[in-house]
Amino acid sequence: MTPRLGEAELTSLATSALEGLGLAPRDAADSARILVLADLFGLHTHGVSRVASYGERVDLGGICAGAQVRVEKVAPAVARVDGANGLGPLVGMRALEAAMDLARECGVGMAFARASNHFGPISPYGYIAAEAGFATMIGSNATTTIAPWGGGDARLGNNPLGFGVPQPGGPPFLLDMAMSVAARAKIRSAAAKGEPIPATWATDAAGRPTTDAKAALDGFLQPVGGHKGYGLALTVDLFAGLLSGAGFLTHVSSWSADPQKPQDLGHFFIALDTTKLGAAEWLAGRMADFRAILHASPPSDPSSPVVVPGEIELARMARFRDEGIPLPQDVIDSLHAFAKRKRAPA
Amino acid sequence: MTPRLGEAELTSLATSALEGLGLAPRDAADSARILVLADLFGLHTHGVSRVASYGERVDLGGICAGAQVRVEKVAPAVARVDGANGLGPLVGMRALEAAMDLARECGVGMAFARASNHFGPISPYGYIAAEAGFATMIGSNATTTIAPWGGGDARLGNNPLGFGVPQPGGPPFLLDMAMSVAARAKIRSAAAKGEPIPATWATDAAGRPTTDAKAALDGFLQPVGGHKGYGLALTVDLFAGLLSGAGFLTHVSSWSADPQKPQDLGHFFIALDTTKLGAAEWLAGRMADFRAILHASPPSDPSSPVVVPGEIELARMARFRDEGIPLPQDVIDSLHAFAKRKRAPA
Repeated sequence: MTPRLGEAELTSLATSALEGLGLAPRDAADSARILVLADLFGLHTHGVSRVASYGERVDLGGICAGAQVRVEKVAPAVARVDGANGLGPLVGMRALEAAMDLARECGVGMAFARASNHFGPISPYGYIAAEAGFATMIGSNATTTIAPWGGGDARLGNNPLGFGVPQPGGPPFLLDMAMSVAARAKIRSAAAKGEPIPATWATDAAGRPTTDAKAALDGFLQPVGGHKGYGLALTVDLFAGLLSGAGFLTHVSSWSADPQKPQDLGHFFIALDTTKLGAAEWLAGRMADFRAILHASPPSDPSSPVVVPGEIELARMARFRDEGIPLPQDVIDSLHAFAKRKRAPA
Repeated sequence: MTPRLGEAELTSLATSALEGLGLAPRDAADSARILVLADLFGLHTHGVSRVASYGERVDLGGICAGAQVRVEKVAPAVARVDGANGLGPLVGMRALEAAMDLARECGVGMAFARASNHFGPISPYGYIAAEAGFATMIGSNATTTIAPWGGGDARLGNNPLGFGVPQPGGPPFLLDMAMSVAARAKIRSAAAKGEPIPATWATDAAGRPTTDAKAALDGFLQPVGGHKGYGLALTVDLFAGLLSGAGFLTHVSSWSADPQKPQDLGHFFIALDTTKLGAAEWLAGRMADFRAILHASPPSDPSSPVVVPGEIELARMARFRDEGIPLPQDVIDSLHAFAKRKRAPA
């Protein structure tokens, strides 16, 4: 049976594990918050299971556990954040906080982070901001896995882009999407089972669409909407990588091929203080109406009513808060192993 | 042979036509700039050919030609723009200017426009901003043509979203995309020719994917990437419609079904003053590098090298500035007819 942990218990364990990796207590707690929210949303591939791979890179010198993240305000509503090659969720939290601080003053705030690493999924950041009344637009670049549209080699990342809009007193709108039609993990799983994949998911190494999952693993992910997804992935890299001062396109180094090397990943965070546009009741009413209009659409499959982005994740969170968060035993064991280092440093 | 007009000549004619519709001279000139840029980019369906349909709605009382657009600063970096049911490109230009003004002060500026109408394509706004050193994120909502993902009736628009990033001394990055796999105009054209369409473009009236172009015209456009495009279209509506105070989802009235009714369309404009992040040489160098990395990808079809979004449109602009802008005679005649009203009001 899969063990289940309460939110407080998992947060405490993940925080200790990150402290074991060398993070200061507050930095560890803030990073753990992102990863635990990911698990609460059911995004287990981006949750506390990541501590093991982060730890591997810390041990190899690829990530700096004791990084001092620096925030530099370059205009009343814009900050540059130097991640100092720190843990991604730590850099992400500091950049999100910077964007929200600027937005409190100016209505909107924008933070550009460089010298960062994999920062987890986007929806936890969007959720934290929405709970505080901020709408967000957030993006990150990533290791190259996608070919330029019409090109024959991987030169851009499956750069995630996410958005959050608060519904005061209700569930926020939360969208978190990568630019590929399907995640690489799905192709890996099909290859392991010897199953074919739809021709729209990926190309082979020569850039030709393929249904052979193994050939696809040697090739490139296909972006959603072809040239449209290509354009969106570039846009995310321009804001997250190029404008932030981070690496971009092929300058982002590969976590798996060069785990000991700083990746110089970049992110951008835009936070909008929605209270500047109207009272909480005004926004709550409009968001409830928005949601009701979508829910009232007759479903093409009566067993699958229309959902609004974020509803599935927030329903999981409610359930997991009630029943505990299911986690494989090896993930829990790994967290305990890292946590032990805190008491007995190597 | 298709007549060709110089940029200055077409701008002057389109300005006169809009003055004939009742716009004040400066408002007419600013609106004409957007439409002429659309034609220079080769986006003729969204260029000066639109003056005829705008004029039809002005004559029916659906658009207010003499609208006084009002800009209200609600925070140091945020403005609300009341379009007063004015011409879309006029409201769009005033909102873009507001966002750029705020960004000059604060580094980033955000303008939310309500009570607006169809504002043309996005790339002209992105181009104008990029020429002045601003990166942009711009979106608009639209009449409903897309069903919620898994839903059975049209409840959201094919909401366009666009981005611009300047390359000082060089061509800007310009992306302008709607959320559907294919434009409705393409389906209309296939239906007229009796040709089938790919099953990924649209559904029939019951929400089932169809290859029958005629059935598709009674159905709904399919969003790019399925649930991903659905989520993006909703995001655009949340920022452009819901947060702006405009209509959203089914509250946006249909231009074709109710041309006499104000649509209450909304837009959002985010402008970022890139000079706050680094010097022009820094940005120019990084943008040139970004472009070169993409161009160097070996093309899967040797006759089609990789392009960066905006390059096709900017190449057309260079050519049309040289050779004149090709326009159908009936479009030119229609502009002259509207321009005549200026001298002899009805």
